[in-house]
Amino acid sequence: MNNDDRVMLAHGGGGELTRTLLSKHILPKLGNEFLDPLFDSALLPPIEGKICFTTDAFVVQPLFFPGGDIGRLAVCGTINDLAVMGARPLVLSLALVLEEGLRLPDLDRVIDSIAEAAKEAGVRVVTGDTKVVERRGEGGMTVTTAGIGVMWNDFSLGTGRIEPGDAVLISGGIAEHGLAVLSAREGLGLSTEIRSDAAPLAGLVADLLDECRNVRFIRDPTRGGVAGLLADLVEESGYGVEILEESIPITPAVRHASELLGLDPLTVANEGKIVVVVAADEADRALAACRAHPLGRDAAAVGRIVEANPPLPELVTRIGGRLMIRRPYGEELPRIC
Amino acid sequence: MNNDDRVMLAHGGGGELTRTLLSKHILPKLGNEFLDPLFDSALLPPIEGKICFTTDAFVVQPLFFPGGDIGRLAVCGTINDLAVMGARPLVLSLALVLEEGLRLPDLDRVIDSIAEAAKEAGVRVVTGDTKVVERRGEGGMTVTTAGIGVMWNDFSLGTGRIEPGDAVLISGGIAEHGLAVLSAREGLGLSTEIRSDAAPLAGLVADLLDECRNVRFIRDPTRGGVAGLLADLVEESGYGVEILEESIPITPAVRHASELLGLDPLTVANEGKIVVVVAADEADRALAACRAHPLGRDAAAVGRIVEANPPLPELVTRIGGRLMIRRPYGEELPRIC
Repeated sequence: MNNDDRVMLAHGGGGELTRTLLSKHILPKLGNEFLDPLFDSALLPPIEGKICFTTDAFVVQPLFFPGGDIGRLAVCGTINDLAVMGARPLVLSLALVLEEGLRLPDLDRVIDSIAEAAKEAGVRVVTGDTKVVERRGEGGMTVTTAGIGVMWNDFSLGTGRIEPGDAVLISGGIAEHGLAVLSAREGLGLSTEIRSDAAPLAGLVADLLDECRNVRFIRDPTRGGVAGLLADLVEESGYGVEILEESIPITPAVRHASELLGLDPLTVANEGKIVVVVAADEADRALAACRAHPLGRDAAAVGRIVEANPPLPELVTRIGGRLMIRRPYGEELPRIC
Repeated sequence: MNNDDRVMLAHGGGGELTRTLLSKHILPKLGNEFLDPLFDSALLPPIEGKICFTTDAFVVQPLFFPGGDIGRLAVCGTINDLAVMGARPLVLSLALVLEEGLRLPDLDRVIDSIAEAAKEAGVRVVTGDTKVVERRGEGGMTVTTAGIGVMWNDFSLGTGRIEPGDAVLISGGIAEHGLAVLSAREGLGLSTEIRSDAAPLAGLVADLLDECRNVRFIRDPTRGGVAGLLADLVEESGYGVEILEESIPITPAVRHASELLGLDPLTVANEGKIVVVVAADEADRALAACRAHPLGRDAAAVGRIVEANPPLPELVTRIGGRLMIRRPYGEELPRIC
């Protein structure tokens, strides 16, 4: 391959080559009235209402995996962090740190993917930055997005609103993202049926909030998986949670791969799922709202909030046993997002 | 040194160790009502007026250099990108990508520095993310900030407002940041008098805009230096610019070091300077406003906007010669910011 097809350190210098990189590889795909002027900042119209602001850095390896890539992930991750707060995502920033040696066609694929995911989510990339660092192996990249959203409603969702008796839902099959990334790593030979679930969930959340006035809390079980999320929920709310193992949505392929690898699927990352806590009398309505959306069609009611002392996240097994759900300690799956 | 004093891959897993890293090393220094809940997004009150949004990734090596470090840089860079648009910086996001092996005391120094610079600039870090990647040498880090600001005035600054005859100012001595970083790299043995100028410039810009109604354009000459900025200015405005070499503020130490290294100081990065274009009849007033601020006391009028065909950025030398100022081509100084 010609050297011209790869990112060079000089592409990050802020000179002619940086401009060429932007004008050839980035602006044609992401360009819009806010980004195109390449000002130091994007100048946006006023936003009416309470604002949500978030950021996420993505370091996933490899860059491409079944069902997605680092670009799709970087858009969906930030969109979803806004959506689960009850906010409508408006704009994104995009900071790329490219490694010298990254193939330009790979950069193009990632940018295409960012453009596609942003379009799906109805947001635009309005400001960005690109840096280049020394070669490390084949040349990778990290992608950091930040996002601004505006609150859908005048109330905010949160663990503070949770009450005993509330129902717990999951919007679809768990552990798919983490296992898809693992399967893309050399030598694991997992089933190719497992694809990352990376998807922008703002539409699903909007439909759910439109239908149900008593949604208490929504969060996306990314790093740390459903287990990490439930541990946080218990810690923050002061209530226990009981999850029925048999009700957790999980595909046979994911179950099989998890067993093979000795992984607890509850601890594996998702990038296109939400855990919802909703008032018990709205649980059916919430479930129906999720199932009516393409990204929630496998949604399931999986448990409930309970008063307990001490409050614990518990899994009720198929044979009626009770296991404490533990937050993973460290890095079960490095560089998964 | 004990392994406990270094960042481990497991610190990035989203589990207990991630929480410990945040609660011990980050929240005590950066914490505030918006950041502390560690929600997926920060929930902010409404912002009245037009909004500015920007992001910058920082990859500087080494992490620490005379006059600053990657943390100070990451705050100042984003603050300044907002300020030069004519916006008052409000909040920052902070995404850290740490390398396994990074010394925790070094992380602490960087976080202290972020807290200090944010305080200087009157902004808060309201949302963040932390990831860990594999070891690479001694363990470094990249820092990506995004920032939201609100426009000071109802008009926006920009090259579109520039007119022939306008005056060009620089707010102080050039090329200090780039040379300070170089001097911190092993074996260069530059004068330690040269310190990075990294500073948050929102106050200086606010004072200037308060005093002068006919400021056309402000930009900070970071990567690519003053030369890159002037080349952009000419390209965007369609006018030429003439700069008098002898009027450019530059310290003897910087001049000497640049000669030694064969670097053109016009192409070397600054992190605490602005280039200002202002109506000719307000040039003195603008200069006085800059000089009255501690970060602009060495400000100088350095040239003017001219009609020319083709429009070029030109340097008028001490002996009256004319040189075209060229945008640097690639990476004169890798990983300078």
